[in-house]
Amino acid sequence: MKTQVLERVVRSFAEMPGIGKKTAQRLAYYVLHREDAYAEQMAQALIDLKKNLRWCAQCYNISELEQCEICLKTDRDHELLCVVEDAVNVANIERSGSFRGYYHVLQGALSPVNGIGPEDLRMKELFERLKHQDVGEIILATNPTVEGEATAMYLLGLLEGTQIKISRIGMGVPIGGSLDYCDEITMAKAIENRRLLS
Amino acid sequence: MKTQVLERVVRSFAEMPGIGKKTAQRLAYYVLHREDAYAEQMAQALIDLKKNLRWCAQCYNISELEQCEICLKTDRDHELLCVVEDAVNVANIERSGSFRGYYHVLQGALSPVNGIGPEDLRMKELFERLKHQDVGEIILATNPTVEGEATAMYLLGLLEGTQIKISRIGMGVPIGGSLDYCDEITMAKAIENRRLLS
Repeated sequence: MKTQVLERVVRSFAEMPGIGKKTAQRLAYYVLHREDAYAEQMAQALIDLKKNLRWCAQCYNISELEQCEICLKTDRDHELLCVVEDAVNVANIERSGSFRGYYHVLQGALSPVNGIGPEDLRMKELFERLKHQDVGEIILATNPTVEGEATAMYLLGLLEGTQIKISRIGMGVPIGGSLDYCDEITMAKAIENRRLLS
Repeated sequence: MKTQVLERVVRSFAEMPGIGKKTAQRLAYYVLHREDAYAEQMAQALIDLKKNLRWCAQCYNISELEQCEICLKTDRDHELLCVVEDAVNVANIERSGSFRGYYHVLQGALSPVNGIGPEDLRMKELFERLKHQDVGEIILATNPTVEGEATAMYLLGLLEGTQIKISRIGMGVPIGGSLDYCDEITMAKAIENRRLLS
């Protein structure tokens, strides 16, 4: 049963990554079955999201103010800078509680196939920052994908002449995962990145 | 990086079925990266969905009018009635193009564990309909789950004394699927429901 209003919700859900037409439909029906307040709150939250958030002027993370919560903190390690592709990765790393430095969000990764070059990323802003900020180590935490790897290698090339230590996040078998379900490339990386225990 | 507005979107997405906290976060960031119009259109579609849709007075499918598009049609087979759990299943069956009768949406399935009994479903309305409508066959198209099966068996029990033919949708290996990936219960059903070819 197709109705125009239902289709509009299905279509906007289906544009989101990883949400196929069928899932979008299931979600739209779910909203339909929920109380009015649920749909209203979701609608309002979506509006507020776009209205109240902007990019941090320093690191290009999302922010409600001119600078983001992390850049405004003074008790973190100024020597450490973690470069990520997307603001969502800042959240990922923050949740792990394993990093006490600052971030720089590139807002994408190099992808010649999709016509995304260095000038489309926040690279100029990164090098501008490095002129003023005394950074001892840059951790390249772009995704372990073709694009993320290319972006890391590109940055490595540009930074190699400097005094700054450059590191790349560790790659291998995810913790809690089973080797059975591990793909070949991850497995190969895990072997390559093996650590001597004795 | 946690901001209150972002969290609100994440939370409302995460309440939807099959959307975990991480997926919800990814979706929220996606919306953030899209143009304003996208979020606004989704918000408006959600509001309109709840405001403009109601349940069809005859079959309890979703509808923009007093009766749904299907019930308003006069060229379908009045002898055939397909009973489904949810309005989304009407859409599923309609897409297959294999059914030309009418529907009755129970708006749920029996589930004693969750305290859902016959009085919580549109069963009374089904029997009321059968008093006035001359139905030759009822296809029980509830889901092939414990609840759907129980609901089908319950209806079968109530309808067995009548002149109406009762059928259940076929169950087995999905078309295009591989036997390797088929679970044991589906496989057992496929064997049980085998059809002689010669």
